[in-house]
Amino acid sequence: MKRIGVLTSGGDAPGMNACLRAIVRTASVKGLEVYGVLQGFKGLTEGRFQPMHLRSVSGIMHLGGTILKSSRYPRFLTAEARSEAAQKIREAGLDGLIAIGGNGTSTGAYHLWREHAIPILVCASTIDNDLYGTDFTIGFDTAVTTAVEAIDRIKDVAAAHDLIFFVEVMGRHRGFLALYAGLAGGCEEILLPEEPTDYDALSQRLMDGRRRGKTSSIVVVAEGDVPGGAFTVAEEVRKRTGLAVRVTVLGHIQRGGTPTPRDRILASRLGNAAVDFLIAGEQGKLVGEIKREIVLTPLKEAIERHKDIDQDLYQLSYLLSQ
Amino acid sequence: MKRIGVLTSGGDAPGMNACLRAIVRTASVKGLEVYGVLQGFKGLTEGRFQPMHLRSVSGIMHLGGTILKSSRYPRFLTAEARSEAAQKIREAGLDGLIAIGGNGTSTGAYHLWREHAIPILVCASTIDNDLYGTDFTIGFDTAVTTAVEAIDRIKDVAAAHDLIFFVEVMGRHRGFLALYAGLAGGCEEILLPEEPTDYDALSQRLMDGRRRGKTSSIVVVAEGDVPGGAFTVAEEVRKRTGLAVRVTVLGHIQRGGTPTPRDRILASRLGNAAVDFLIAGEQGKLVGEIKREIVLTPLKEAIERHKDIDQDLYQLSYLLSQ
Amino acid sequence: MKRIGVLTSGGDAPGMNACLRAIVRTASVKGLEVYGVLQGFKGLTEGRFQPMHLRSVSGIMHLGGTILKSSRYPRFLTAEARSEAAQKIREAGLDGLIAIGGNGTSTGAYHLWREHAIPILVCASTIDNDLYGTDFTIGFDTAVTTAVEAIDRIKDVAAAHDLIFFVEVMGRHRGFLALYAGLAGGCEEILLPEEPTDYDALSQRLMDGRRRGKTSSIVVVAEGDVPGGAFTVAEEVRKRTGLAVRVTVLGHIQRGGTPTPRDRILASRLGNAAVDFLIAGEQGKLVGEIKREIVLTPLKEAIERHKDIDQDLYQLSYLLSQ
Amino acid sequence: MKRIGVLTSGGDAPGMNACLRAIVRTASVKGLEVYGVLQGFKGLTEGRFQPMHLRSVSGIMHLGGTILKSSRYPRFLTAEARSEAAQKIREAGLDGLIAIGGNGTSTGAYHLWREHAIPILVCASTIDNDLYGTDFTIGFDTAVTTAVEAIDRIKDVAAAHDLIFFVEVMGRHRGFLALYAGLAGGCEEILLPEEPTDYDALSQRLMDGRRRGKTSSIVVVAEGDVPGGAFTVAEEVRKRTGLAVRVTVLGHIQRGGTPTPRDRILASRLGNAAVDFLIAGEQGKLVGEIKREIVLTPLKEAIERHKDIDQDLYQLSYLLSQ
Repeated sequence: MKRIGVLTSGGDAPGMNACLRAIVRTASVKGLEVYGVLQGFKGLTEGRFQPMHLRSVSGIMHLGGTILKSSRYPRFLTAEARSEAAQKIREAGLDGLIAIGGNGTSTGAYHLWREHAIPILVCASTIDNDLYGTDFTIGFDTAVTTAVEAIDRIKDVAAAHDLIFFVEVMGRHRGFLALYAGLAGGCEEILLPEEPTDYDALSQRLMDGRRRGKTSSIVVVAEGDVPGGAFTVAEEVRKRTGLAVRVTVLGHIQRGGTPTPRDRILASRLGNAAVDFLIAGEQGKLVGEIKREIVLTPLKEAIERHKDIDQDLYQLSYLLSQ
Repeated sequence: MKRIGVLTSGGDAPGMNACLRAIVRTASVKGLEVYGVLQGFKGLTEGRFQPMHLRSVSGIMHLGGTILKSSRYPRFLTAEARSEAAQKIREAGLDGLIAIGGNGTSTGAYHLWREHAIPILVCASTIDNDLYGTDFTIGFDTAVTTAVEAIDRIKDVAAAHDLIFFVEVMGRHRGFLALYAGLAGGCEEILLPEEPTDYDALSQRLMDGRRRGKTSSIVVVAEGDVPGGAFTVAEEVRKRTGLAVRVTVLGHIQRGGTPTPRDRILASRLGNAAVDFLIAGEQGKLVGEIKREIVLTPLKEAIERHKDIDQDLYQLSYLLSQ
Repeated sequence: MKRIGVLTSGGDAPGMNACLRAIVRTASVKGLEVYGVLQGFKGLTEGRFQPMHLRSVSGIMHLGGTILKSSRYPRFLTAEARSEAAQKIREAGLDGLIAIGGNGTSTGAYHLWREHAIPILVCASTIDNDLYGTDFTIGFDTAVTTAVEAIDRIKDVAAAHDLIFFVEVMGRHRGFLALYAGLAGGCEEILLPEEPTDYDALSQRLMDGRRRGKTSSIVVVAEGDVPGGAFTVAEEVRKRTGLAVRVTVLGHIQRGGTPTPRDRILASRLGNAAVDFLIAGEQGKLVGEIKREIVLTPLKEAIERHKDIDQDLYQLSYLLSQ
Repeated sequence: MKRIGVLTSGGDAPGMNACLRAIVRTASVKGLEVYGVLQGFKGLTEGRFQPMHLRSVSGIMHLGGTILKSSRYPRFLTAEARSEAAQKIREAGLDGLIAIGGNGTSTGAYHLWREHAIPILVCASTIDNDLYGTDFTIGFDTAVTTAVEAIDRIKDVAAAHDLIFFVEVMGRHRGFLALYAGLAGGCEEILLPEEPTDYDALSQRLMDGRRRGKTSSIVVVAEGDVPGGAFTVAEEVRKRTGLAVRVTVLGHIQRGGTPTPRDRILASRLGNAAVDFLIAGEQGKLVGEIKREIVLTPLKEAIERHKDIDQDLYQLSYLLSQ
């Protein structure tokens, strides 16, 4: 193995640059040439490669976003696009590829590997944490931190006005972000796609909280909990309780910002390990961290299996927000 | 003057607690008794008073929200509610009242003063900065800071994906927050209620920016710019340009959080001055700061006159975001 | 078990309040009475108890410090002080005690338990992370985050001036904070008490970095690395290299501030578990988290055994800062 | 005027990049060529120039430090060095020069202008705010913000342990930073070079505070208040009171970090105005802002006259920290 490529793909996540830095520096120290691929799978298909060296990744550790830029590129779901990518990879003489991304990235990488026998590994990175094969994904801790900072601010407002706030966080299919942000934010209710939403029971609990002396409450709602998200939930509660409600949708601020130390360290570990594994002949696998150990999971498994939400934390959040 | 009351009213703003601290401590040092009124004009009408001392305001300088709680209380627009308030004030033996708030607060205070001859002053505080009689209101600098932090994060995402982002900030009637956040955030476009929004020209400028090499752009939209806010604008631009657009509505996070040093100092100055002015016999006036000097403005003028947007900053923002 | 006490002791750490909240709420929900002990072991000896309820811990999750206050109280090393404490515990009718703290707290708790058979558990909390029986202590993640924020700022200055900065972080005996902050901060060198400091080799590496194109460098120094800390190291490097050096000692800012989500969640888990364990009859043990599972460790073991520094992260930091 | 140069010099300050962006973009829009000078006066003497365009300053508004790098270059105090600089300026065909910096920069610029008739203006930028001819300098608001964040953290620790903290902030000759940080931080005492330090009176006031119920106190000490700074003061107070004291020196973190919105806007205004003034034929002057208006002050006056500390804020800080 003499030359490898690296790309970031899908929704960007804080820590992608830290992971890129680890990949470029580890590979350089081990004597490999590294090419950065611009704009993820789209750039791969178009052969947008640029050489990277030790100094190309100086001073990027703490930057949000990705200096390689990313893209959502549905065309990569077609065999045709992947053939073009494989062609470009061969032309550039790349002996392997490391992709940094989440579910969609893993799916694209899996098919590219299976169809074209390109040695490829994926470093688990998405703010949603919805990836089997790792306890946490790169970017998740930062997104939780951003959401909790927002919740802390909103608590000031809710407390000043005795209001019930519905705060929508990202998570179309999974509720990890809502769960962690809600627990750390000391929120009264956490509504997840994984759990049924019972408006009557929810309204009852909020009214009970009032009776116990709570003058304001925060309900965290995962984007994908119900159609319409936090707006729907707030309206249903308002109808049932007559309480004054407010809605805030955190939106894209959850994707940006400087990565937390935890994300930088996770990114550094996964990026470093990915290079070592690639050199050691591993391929078609996701690089993640489980119980603090670096773990490889076949990409097929990573994209097909379901990572369960932490039921203990979910129970705990309700117990502690009494 | 032996005993005064203090209240916070309307939308809460970071720095209200710092202003309250200044009022309570200045009054205590000058030998006055101070009563805090809970929940603004609502609590005033209900006689919800509590004595405050030097130590009652310990450790609150850096807290967002307001420890006295606030309220929106439209009933105070009626003479009846104000009569009840005047009655409660007399019963409690208050010789004067200081209200911390914005436009609505000033309006309520003005009528209470005019009808019942209660010596009353208002400390200018609202995140919107839309109050005549002061260059800046308490809370504005913090709201700008929160909005700019959000814009900085969103820039990471916009840059990673070559997107155009429409970021909606608060400001139903006035665009101060949009203007300052947009200029400090280095945003390409700032859409204000004070300026007409021309979708064709806007779309053209965004396309021109692309041609000059800009790969991503941020458009700040004041809530009250057009009906539907940022969503409307984004859709109109998408139709005209075919560019990929994203919308984020910052919402209530702009009201909370620890106040900036600038807001804490402004709050301290205005609160301190209000007590001195009240003792000196001033009443029916807004306490503000103009060109770094403490200035009194009759409440009637403060609520009737219009503070112009900074045209020079508006021009500057366009020149610098080339 | 009907009534328990809870205290925070030793150096305060962000997250202690979140842990306290978890203990009070869990205990209340399970039908226990809870007494807060003011000022740690000192207050325990003096019988400074106050009843706590569900609402006593409202709105404290995000606060740094500890609302119970803490103390360093060397007199608790004497059997006499512990006898007084045991006496006060019996007088107050406490059936158990949960202490939140680090090494010194665990030592005091161990002796109190051994000598007086008071059912006692300790929740692991110190910014130093130097406690056997848990992967991470409550407060460590926040301290790392604060240190990395400071390092990020200093990098701006170092880069603008082509300087070598020596940043001293807390850690008299152990280098966990230096290691994690240095790795996440992308620092060139990390000097730990656990590793010998060779000034010649260090100076050589810094000069080599210059030759490879690095224009500025950051050296993180654990307080206890060498006598004199960062000042000593900087002077030795200056003498050997002639390079311009600067020193910053981060100091007590590392102890304060709002806890990170990770610390809040860890604190919530440990506090909740401690109550359950106490009810289940466990005592004389440290409550920690290892590989994401809650784990009990006999206090004797916790205070006598040595937690090894993460050698893999130490190696990684050097590899990645090439 | 066809071609101008721009440099950053002396201690770097957050907002220098925002000022540079304003200069480059304004000049480009007005049809001027712009050359960036690397490393301040040092690079000027060595002719280290690089052409800058609209896109050269993309995405730098929010970055701390300075992308042009800065330097402290005492040799520029010699006429010889300035002659070399003048020679390089003529060789590069620069018709004017804008320097971004503080006192030392203004001094160098003044002599260069006087001796060699180079049209030169200075944009006022230093974290110390010790420059006559402007209410505030670029970078001061950010430094105050950083210091207040640190003070907020330290308050957590002080409150948890009933300690007296001495926090040293930058300011070798002037106390602006100490004054603003101390007032905004709600500190009990502020020690400035401009005011005599009376250890007996200080100790007495701290003891009085205890008697009034204060359990912890923060004393802000400007670096240049007394020889030895905060360490000296703390020791003198400890000797007189026997109270437990702690010292923290904030150091270089005060120079770095992303600039506040206020600093970004000030920087944008001054940079923009400097270009316009240069085109209009102004030279040998400092560009500052007084009472919200852009103001020119002859450099001679700027470096010779003394800006007074805000006595009203100093009095206010003592009144409010009762």
